[in-house]
Amino acid sequence: MKIYTKTGDKGTTSLIFGERVSKNDVRVDAYGTCDEANSMIGFGVSLFPKEKWAENATTVMQKVQTVLFHVGAELATPAGKEVAWKLKEEDISFLEETIDQWQVGLKPLKQFILPGGSPSASALHTARTIARRAERIAVEIEGVNPLVLSYLNRLSDFLFVAARYVNEQMKVNEPVLHEDHS
Amino acid sequence: MKIYTKTGDKGTTSLIFGERVSKNDVRVDAYGTCDEANSMIGFGVSLFPKEKWAENATTVMQKVQTVLFHVGAELATPAGKEVAWKLKEEDISFLEETIDQWQVGLKPLKQFILPGGSPSASALHTARTIARRAERIAVEIEGVNPLVLSYLNRLSDFLFVAARYVNEQMKVNEPVLHEDHS
Amino acid sequence: MKIYTKTGDKGTTSLIFGERVSKNDVRVDAYGTCDEANSMIGFGVSLFPKEKWAENATTVMQKVQTVLFHVGAELATPAGKEVAWKLKEEDISFLEETIDQWQVGLKPLKQFILPGGSPSASALHTARTIARRAERIAVEIEGVNPLVLSYLNRLSDFLFVAARYVNEQMKVNEPVLHEDHS
Ligand code: B12
Ligand code: B12
Ligand code: B12
Ligand SMILES: C[C@H]1O[C@@H](n2cnc3c(N)ncnc32)[C@H](O)[C@@H]1O
Ligand SMILES: C[C@H]1O[C@@H](n2cnc3c(N)ncnc32)[C@H](O)[C@@H]1O
Ligand SMILES: C[C@H]1O[C@@H](n2cnc3c(N)ncnc32)[C@H](O)[C@@H]1O
Ligand SMILES: [Mg+2]
Ligand SMILES: [Mg+2]
Ligand SMILES: [Mg+2]
Repeated sequence: MKIYTKTGDKGTTSLIFGERVSKNDVRVDAYGTCDEANSMIGFGVSLFPKEKWAENATTVMQKVQTVLFHVGAELATPAGKEVAWKLKEEDISFLEETIDQWQVGLKPLKQFILPGGSPSASALHTARTIARRAERIAVEIEGVNPLVLSYLNRLSDFLFVAARYVNEQMKVNEPVLHEDHS
Repeated sequence: MKIYTKTGDKGTTSLIFGERVSKNDVRVDAYGTCDEANSMIGFGVSLFPKEKWAENATTVMQKVQTVLFHVGAELATPAGKEVAWKLKEEDISFLEETIDQWQVGLKPLKQFILPGGSPSASALHTARTIARRAERIAVEIEGVNPLVLSYLNRLSDFLFVAARYVNEQMKVNEPVLHEDHS
Repeated sequence: MKIYTKTGDKGTTSLIFGERVSKNDVRVDAYGTCDEANSMIGFGVSLFPKEKWAENATTVMQKVQTVLFHVGAELATPAGKEVAWKLKEEDISFLEETIDQWQVGLKPLKQFILPGGSPSASALHTARTIARRAERIAVEIEGVNPLVLSYLNRLSDFLFVAARYVNEQMKVNEPVLHEDHS
């Protein structure tokens, strides 16, 4: 099978059980945006240094990237159908446990920080904002699995902490607002 | 002429033949998103190593970036008018031929891959998802040139193969899903 | 207070004065997209070299990143209310003055350029297109502060010049269209 099938050249495509929809269907927009967040996470990981902490963090991140395919499968399944890949409560707990773990060494915040620091952390901040965009689209889907919304909500908090954690591990200062607003 | 004309400060702008539209007009959204995809391609190219294969790939990529300005011109032209820059069937064939050529050394896929690998490949994966977002917007335009939809559809398949090709050339392992779903 | 409050798991969130809205409310979309542009600017800055001009440019960029939080505050404030962080005319003048200053050494343009060059400049081009996306969303907000629209409009011109300026300082050739269209 060729990668380019040309079947989508007229602006329609199919969901998992074959239902044909417009490419601007909200479900397509939602899983397409998860794919975008996934790619930006992959980019952040590609900039990790060759160090022990980063090896562990890569494993965590690739687990998250894999779960994003389960999220995508849920989003690509028409209401009323069940897909083989299921998003699980444990996937959300995994994010929460990693947040709690990575936050231990981080300075508690009393104000916003500037998204930035090391290239890798900056990319994870960008991924965070794309995950939030995916969430904004997903809330529009009628009958969406509520776990998807919880997962995407937690994902952006996870990516916020991941970005800070990477800066901390790499000993790169967290950029602060130019005026003090604390 | 100054770069900042301030004429767009009130939220409207003009298409190619001067017609004034809101900045949230679907055409503006579509060519604005092509510009975003174009910029992310440029970023992927900026991370190419100084090697022979990459020099050739840069030429290919810059040809694609140029054609994206033709796509943009089509999108910025109101229905019924004709613009000087025309998108051509050959532009699509060029993508298909490059896909076929770059795919020769790649392992055929039986499942999804994680978007990632080298920084450059990860950026091209991200560009792929932005091209797909541009396609989702373009399908909403009434009377859009069908070549534009075909081109954007092929472009994301091209960028998928380009990302894989870059990883192959750079000898960076293609990240795989954490569970086997083959 | 934990980072993950879970209060937004059902798809709603609150604006600055506590009003509860859907996460797909246009205001949320607008400040979420400013956050995305802000993150991509932070990424561009993270790739600056350790040089004198870049130190100055970092100060400028972080000032802009800080002002984007003021833009965000305006966008997160329901019509009729006033927030502590105010966007000011001077914030726009600051962009214009920096544009004029950074443009001095740049070749005047008679045609489009390919977004690219150094990784940092390419990231700033990408940030430019995200700022433009934020502007396209912001124009949809009823009763939006007009300064917000002017600021976002100027921001993308500023980022265009910033990208060119970075390429010039780094002595990286500005990529040109593959065909001459001058
Ligand atoms: C939804 C969807 C997506 C979504 C979301 C997926 C998700 N779960 O998050 C996104 C947007 C990520 C996506 C992206 C792509 N997709 Co897609 N996708 C689908 C779709 C509709 C359902 C897939 C799914 O999630 N199934 C759920 C699981 C439980 O069921 P499954 O059937 O066992 O799924 C397996 C296969 O679909 C599959 N697979 C089998 N052979 C191949 C070959 C290729 C090249 C790929 C990429 C996958 C693939 O991988 C899954 C896991 O093993 C299918 C079409 C269909 N109706 O099945 C196309 C499909 C798998 N996609 C396809 C393609 C080409 C792509 C892209 C390359 C498009 C692009 N240019 O970006 C990328 C690849 C991304 C990657 N990282 O590998 C093609 C593959 C054609 C082929 N055999 O060569 C398909 C068959 C559609 C088609 N007919 O053209 N996709
Ligand atoms: C559609 C459009 C876009 C689209 C799509 C373009 C495409 N084809 O894909 C996108 C979103 C990419 C875009 C981006 C920008 N654009 Co524009 N764009 C237009 C528009 C409406 C049509 C251009 C076009 O495609 N013409 C089709 C070709 C066939 O016709 P042409 O007229 O011969 O086109 C040539 C000139 O327009 C031109 N050109 C001539 N002088 C200059 C000067 C500058 C600074 C630039 C960037 C281009 C430019 O380059 C083309 C090729 O040679 C024009 C306004 C208009 N109505 O003409 C503005 C216009 C060219 N854009 C302008 C600007 C400022 C920009 C941006 C810098 C905005 C920003 N801050 O991001 C960027 C630059 C991007 C880049 N990489 O160089 C200004 C240039 C002002 C000036 N002379 O200094 C114009 C004139 C609008 C205006 N009045 O403000 N643009
Ligand atoms: C609008 C908004 C945003 C917007 C726009 C902000 C802007 N101005 O541009 C954006 C999208 C950027 C955003 C992002 C985030 N936000 Co927010 N945001 C808000 C909101 C609704 C208003 C904030 C504001 O602008 N106030 C205007 C100024 C003038 O008033 P202020 O009250 O003095 O603002 C200060 C505090 O809000 C604050 N602050 C105080 N303690 C903490 C703790 C943390 C962790 C953070 C990030 C900020 C923060 O910093 C401001 C400056 O000093 C508040 C909730 C609320 N109703 O207040 C949440 C809120 C501040 N955000 C929150 C969070 C968690 C985040 C994110 C981490 C979410 C994410 N996963 O991406 C990021 C962090 C981004 C960063 N770079 O630091 C939480 C903080 C919870 C906590 N105390 O731990 C809040 C309280 C919402 C909530 N109840 O969950 N946010
Ligand atoms: C931190 C603040 O961000 C806003 N918020 C909550 N979810 C999203 C999202 N998906 N996208 C953008 N903004 C969001 C809320 O206003 C919250 O209080
Ligand atoms: C690989 C799968 O991606 C979906 N698909 C097709 N075109 C787009 C697009 N522009 N954006 C997001 N998803 C798309 C279809 O469901 C296809 O089967
Ligand atoms: C350079 C050209 O870009 C278009 N334009 C103006 N503002 C935006 C925006 N926010 N997003 C996308 N395109 C825009 C207009 O057509 C202008 O002439
Ligand atoms: Mg949240
Ligand atoms: Mg396609
Ligand atoms: Mg403008």
